[in-house]
Amino acid sequence: MMEIEQLWREIDGRVTSLPVESVSLQDSNHRVLASDVAATTDQPAFDQSAMDGFAFASTHPGECKISDTVAAGASSSIQLHSGEAVRILTGGVVPRGTFAIEKQEDCVVTDGTVRLRDDMPLAKGKFIRPKAGIFRAGDVILERCKRITPGALALLASAGIAELDVVSRASCLHVITGDEIVPVGTPLPTGNTYDSNGPMLHALLTDAGVSSSAIALRDDPTRLTEVVSNCRTSIILISGGSGPGDRDHAKHALESSGFTIHTHRINSRPGGPLIFATRDGQVAFGLPGNPLSHWVCFHAFVGRMISRLHGQELSPLIIAEVSTEIPDTGDGRRTWTPAFLTSASGTWTATPLPWKHSGDLTPLVRANALILDGTSSTGTAAVLPIHL
Amino acid sequence: MMEIEQLWREIDGRVTSLPVESVSLQDSNHRVLASDVAATTDQPAFDQSAMDGFAFASTHPGECKISDTVAAGASSSIQLHSGEAVRILTGGVVPRGTFAIEKQEDCVVTDGTVRLRDDMPLAKGKFIRPKAGIFRAGDVILERCKRITPGALALLASAGIAELDVVSRASCLHVITGDEIVPVGTPLPTGNTYDSNGPMLHALLTDAGVSSSAIALRDDPTRLTEVVSNCRTSIILISGGSGPGDRDHAKHALESSGFTIHTHRINSRPGGPLIFATRDGQVAFGLPGNPLSHWVCFHAFVGRMISRLHGQELSPLIIAEVSTEIPDTGDGRRTWTPAFLTSASGTWTATPLPWKHSGDLTPLVRANALILDGTSSTGTAAVLPIHL
Repeated sequence: MMEIEQLWREIDGRVTSLPVESVSLQDSNHRVLASDVAATTDQPAFDQSAMDGFAFASTHPGECKISDTVAAGASSSIQLHSGEAVRILTGGVVPRGTFAIEKQEDCVVTDGTVRLRDDMPLAKGKFIRPKAGIFRAGDVILERCKRITPGALALLASAGIAELDVVSRASCLHVITGDEIVPVGTPLPTGNTYDSNGPMLHALLTDAGVSSSAIALRDDPTRLTEVVSNCRTSIILISGGSGPGDRDHAKHALESSGFTIHTHRINSRPGGPLIFATRDGQVAFGLPGNPLSHWVCFHAFVGRMISRLHGQELSPLIIAEVSTEIPDTGDGRRTWTPAFLTSASGTWTATPLPWKHSGDLTPLVRANALILDGTSSTGTAAVLPIHL
Repeated sequence: MMEIEQLWREIDGRVTSLPVESVSLQDSNHRVLASDVAATTDQPAFDQSAMDGFAFASTHPGECKISDTVAAGASSSIQLHSGEAVRILTGGVVPRGTFAIEKQEDCVVTDGTVRLRDDMPLAKGKFIRPKAGIFRAGDVILERCKRITPGALALLASAGIAELDVVSRASCLHVITGDEIVPVGTPLPTGNTYDSNGPMLHALLTDAGVSSSAIALRDDPTRLTEVVSNCRTSIILISGGSGPGDRDHAKHALESSGFTIHTHRINSRPGGPLIFATRDGQVAFGLPGNPLSHWVCFHAFVGRMISRLHGQELSPLIIAEVSTEIPDTGDGRRTWTPAFLTSASGTWTATPLPWKHSGDLTPLVRANALILDGTSSTGTAAVLPIHL
């Protein structure tokens, strides 16, 4: 029986980033950069006005003739001389010879001339954003391994980046086993159960950026081995049949398809009969059939494997106050408790969500965290936050 | 000039949920329920075994003949008699006449008979999940206004729900103005600037579940009015031209297209010249052109409007410790500071991210929060968390 932390180490050690692919800027949100990105232009690309106002040639310009206008977007080659001022809009190219810019509210315009509203000297460079003041062409503006956010997209666009090298995203085949499992939208014969794992895993995988397809196989060991043998997705998830029973075929199907089994039993409740296996860069999990186990094992283990494939940082466990004591099991079994995590009071508080047995899915509606083990003497516990 | 809180009240008062639509369970992740959902079946739908083991007819069964086997998924009409036991798998239909189930590890099987490993009496109902123990057919299992999570999908599937009434999702036309704005992937003439707002808003809108398209119009007031007049999306966002200047056409285009302007100047830095307008269920914002203003105004105001359209709960401000003092501006202007928010120590800590001027987008790569106003005497501030 493998400990939870040992399984995490196995995942970290055996799963590496997927290959690099090139995507357009528009398609890169949430992707992880595979190489450093260097700016193609200076930012700003020229001395730029920070205000709508007037460019002056000296610190005490006095009454100046308005000699020209620079609109934003205009390519300006204006030369400013002493005694002159040039009207300029925010973002406009600062004329050669400019000492400083004053904003229009602080200027007085009369008959084609302009002067400062007060007699204070202008500070050199006032309201001028200097060329390359933010970064230079060639500067690295975003390092590899960073996850691209909408804000990063704006930065990359401003630097003229149209295409990026990012880590590829994983594909997944979800194999649903069990003679008793029928899809929603069909009648439910006595003794049968609607498939919860299919819709849930599809949603979890999609949220994690994994493209997934599902196949329902009932309990057919030959067909299962055939499907696993021929599968070429980066991930295979097998729902059900992960245990040691007569009808549990996942381990055999994986082994006879060339997968190496790294564990098939972990000290985790729910999640005990969990299989973790690899084959030439492919990763497989055999998940205990009940949906509560699926939800827990996905967040505790499968999600970590996806983060590794996608080159993402792992979410650490946090320490939270727990609103109701969770006693230690006393039998050495490690437990996960679905919980609702809030930070309203400024500290993390996890509220364990009651459940009647492993067939009770009601806590999963609200759960946004998993508490690991019982509470300490100070009423805290290690908690894995889950982003919904 | 409208205060931030007043604009929030305007948004809350004027923007309501979009109409209801029906979607399949598979497509309902993250959607908001428009009506209560009632289960179509009991859960469990029958008395169900919680273990692989044997069904016994009494508390002291003694040595019993194994009379039959119930597999998971089999529709069972087995009657259990005294002196008999029935082999049963997890999820199997409990035979009539069953007193309790014992798991196989605690049973001893010999030559077609089975007995308990120890002589302790069996508790009535042991390892039986009673029919309808979680919920009954007709019970409301998820209330309207709830946002559907992957865990909720599993619950809904288990209850036989194949289709759901949810709040429709918003569509958005993003109008990019400015003669100086050119798209990435093209050469950059002197005086011009790459379009950051287009890629950034597309990503922010997509993350918020809004389908969006963009059109770049340069500074053409006639064309802008024409586009706004004919637009039928739920949201119109106009980038640039929201101020009072000669080249600022957003307010006029909205007014002459039948929009009512509720504000065109707010006490918010960045974000001062912000337009909020409505027309027959459509909502428009005119956003100050620089990308930092866009990022701030999206999270502070546009996102709130989208949450209202989608029937979602609003994210409240939290109080966080701020790592570096942010002095009050002293001029009565309210400010937003991009920040990096962490909870590693168990309390929220916001680190203000330095920026040189409103053309500096480097803080947006890491920013996951906005600090509102300066820090208090105790070093805390109100912070808007942003989910990346």
